[in-house]
Amino acid sequence: MDAFFNPRSLAVIGASNKAFNLGATICKFISYLQYDGEFYAVNRKGEDVADCKGYTSLAEIPGEVDLAVILTPAYVVPQVMEECGHKGIKAVIIETAGFNEEGEGGRQMQQEVNRIAREHGIRFIGPNCLGTMNAHNRFCCFFGAQPGMYDSVYDDPGTISYVIQSGGVGVLIMDSLVSDVVNVNKMMSIGNKEDIDEADCIDYFNTDNTEVIGMYLESIHNGTRFMEAAQRSSKPVLVYKVGRTEAGAQAAMSHTAGMANNDVIFDAACRQAGVIRCNDISELHSMPKIFTTMPLLKGNRIAIFTNSGAFGGITSDLLVEAGFTVPTLSEKLQQKIAATGKLYNVGNPIDMGPTLSKETFIDIFTLLLESDEIDGLVPVLNVWQPVVIEALMELGDICKACDKPASIYVPNAVDRILQLRREYRLPGFLSPEEAVRALQVSRFYSNAQKKKEQVASLV
Amino acid sequence: MDAFFNPRSLAVIGASNKAFNLGATICKFISYLQYDGEFYAVNRKGEDVADCKGYTSLAEIPGEVDLAVILTPAYVVPQVMEECGHKGIKAVIIETAGFNEEGEGGRQMQQEVNRIAREHGIRFIGPNCLGTMNAHNRFCCFFGAQPGMYDSVYDDPGTISYVIQSGGVGVLIMDSLVSDVVNVNKMMSIGNKEDIDEADCIDYFNTDNTEVIGMYLESIHNGTRFMEAAQRSSKPVLVYKVGRTEAGAQAAMSHTAGMANNDVIFDAACRQAGVIRCNDISELHSMPKIFTTMPLLKGNRIAIFTNSGAFGGITSDLLVEAGFTVPTLSEKLQQKIAATGKLYNVGNPIDMGPTLSKETFIDIFTLLLESDEIDGLVPVLNVWQPVVIEALMELGDICKACDKPASIYVPNAVDRILQLRREYRLPGFLSPEEAVRALQVSRFYSNAQKKKEQVASLV
Repeated sequence: MDAFFNPRSLAVIGASNKAFNLGATICKFISYLQYDGEFYAVNRKGEDVADCKGYTSLAEIPGEVDLAVILTPAYVVPQVMEECGHKGIKAVIIETAGFNEEGEGGRQMQQEVNRIAREHGIRFIGPNCLGTMNAHNRFCCFFGAQPGMYDSVYDDPGTISYVIQSGGVGVLIMDSLVSDVVNVNKMMSIGNKEDIDEADCIDYFNTDNTEVIGMYLESIHNGTRFMEAAQRSSKPVLVYKVGRTEAGAQAAMSHTAGMANNDVIFDAACRQAGVIRCNDISELHSMPKIFTTMPLLKGNRIAIFTNSGAFGGITSDLLVEAGFTVPTLSEKLQQKIAATGKLYNVGNPIDMGPTLSKETFIDIFTLLLESDEIDGLVPVLNVWQPVVIEALMELGDICKACDKPASIYVPNAVDRILQLRREYRLPGFLSPEEAVRALQVSRFYSNAQKKKEQVASLV
Repeated sequence: MDAFFNPRSLAVIGASNKAFNLGATICKFISYLQYDGEFYAVNRKGEDVADCKGYTSLAEIPGEVDLAVILTPAYVVPQVMEECGHKGIKAVIIETAGFNEEGEGGRQMQQEVNRIAREHGIRFIGPNCLGTMNAHNRFCCFFGAQPGMYDSVYDDPGTISYVIQSGGVGVLIMDSLVSDVVNVNKMMSIGNKEDIDEADCIDYFNTDNTEVIGMYLESIHNGTRFMEAAQRSSKPVLVYKVGRTEAGAQAAMSHTAGMANNDVIFDAACRQAGVIRCNDISELHSMPKIFTTMPLLKGNRIAIFTNSGAFGGITSDLLVEAGFTVPTLSEKLQQKIAATGKLYNVGNPIDMGPTLSKETFIDIFTLLLESDEIDGLVPVLNVWQPVVIEALMELGDICKACDKPASIYVPNAVDRILQLRREYRLPGFLSPEEAVRALQVSRFYSNAQKKKEQVASLV
């Protein structure tokens, strides 16, 4: 699999200097990225495209080719695969569309491609996909990418890896992470997944520096393999799946030619395997930070700490509806908290009112997280003065020391939250709903891990 | 009620030049706003505060006083109310806290205040509230407001009026609307609502230029009155209510001293009265634009029109889960749509792929909205080239002409959507979930209106 993300040499087949040529966008983008490797363009004239040296066929290329990206018309693909085999290429990405999703003719061509791949021991991604990218080594073979497009992703590579059965969703996720505190490690669009599928991806991302795996799926290629890979995974797997309804499944089928799957069964299987099912498409980019910035949530007792009274009630409702408890703190703990400053309410929610001493914030964070009465914290703190953000910046360390998570919501307009994330790297959520959901996701995963350990200890 | 929003003269009782004086923040803010009226500050020394002329008592003020705002300590409030009565003031806002929410002593004082108000025919808002604001005439008596804070609200007044049982939520809403296409008409924080309550507010906002009423409630003062007012309302009423769970109700009670209400009963009553219950606190600011910018949704058949394949499936799922259908279009309509350009899919979802002719967008909008096969539209159009936004800018007029709504989602990162809203006044939602929810809200309201009309015709 590594050749798909770290190729020493790359050939883009079907890249030429004709107007609107999609292969050319890859050549131009990889040249722009100054990726460290050899690039070749294969086209009828043998012309160079950007920094990619041109050849009329793969056979002509003097050196070895680690990875071939195919963007020719569909009917040529079987022949190109044959050439890949003869050149000894073991990793191919077929970005061309027009196979199973286009009816009987396409299906026959697909069978031909699959046969050739098997014959030559080629592993391939696609067809009908966008390709792969690696934020750490500045590699990308997404067609259509424009110079500058993902600069911020490359400037600040991360540890979240994505498997995305659609280019549009992938781009949306990358754009969204730009204003968050986590970022992409690798991303791959697997299209019709005739060979490499979601199970291979989970296994691979368990071998690299990935911390969280995010998946947007329009179908499950092989349910058993997927669930086994998820069971094996030592990293959280987040899945957003289309096709929960018949209308959605129909739309997805015409997009990437998957099979409709029974959603109820899929849902039960996810629970079983500890796969986190995203409720919203945005959870693919909003949830990873609860794993990368905070310890796992190991119990259900949550404290709320706010400086904006109404949010105590709002957040209490949301927590209870999500299956948590908001326990009244013991007299003793309440007294300790009351001693930290002039507060409105110390029972839980703790409402500190307009108090503005950084020590008070830190003292309350510490008292709550160190106590054995609560398992996690939701700070809902309006950043109306700099001292609030200063205090929040120290919260992460307290959480780590106490091995309990805090799910932060700053009740300011979305623009302001995005700004606080960018400027201070504050791992804040965009709404109280999102903050509570993050705790739910963390709790689900920590429960699933515990179950796996128990099962393992029995074997 | 008008005196609370358009007073010719205002007295702020308890405003002085002492440090941290809350009354002074009102005097300073109203001076900053250059509100057209007479302002007075009442304090022990009789000193002026900002542009507000100072007096030692209400009786001393030479002219009439339309509205009194009280920010003295709680124990003085009964006496001040008495003075208001003698001065002939009929509208008072008691912003001071420390009544029912502070136990028995507070409750006794409250009874005293209520008695005096009845005796003198005074209507009052509060206690324990933030006050009122009117974006159209630049009036505001929110304590704690800082010059500059709501400039964008005053620069661009709107037609959404809010009743907010918490200052923090009100500020969050105003800040959020700054990057949206709708804006505030009036906002009022009603606190413990010992006199004027949510029912009075609904009635009042049915007499002014309000188009949509948004409410954040921690309790219902009088269920029957509230539901009757909602029934009477000819404008959509959106409610977010805290206290759905016991923990939430407890937290709310300590905040604004309301009574816990049975949520199941409240929910049923809302359905009955056509009150829209918000699922998220953000819906208070995100949903109004579906009413102010689009016709009501009168049926359940929705078309999806996208240029980013995956979102066809995502949105289909969401629509069906929300109770809509995504009907396959008739052969005839499909042919007409196919004739507009080179498209990927014309069945519904309509997937136009990377086509970039403005005419094609407009033709498809028109064909869909004019057809009798669908009742509403979800355009999910990535604004990757200027032509897409140009086309979307014309969609509103087509919707009006066809009397059907479109609920727009632009599958770009949130920053980009906020920018499109500000720059082009595009009434776009922040997620596909929000766009689908807006149609659900519109449909719920149009159904409720129809039911009301039927009932009225029977009487």
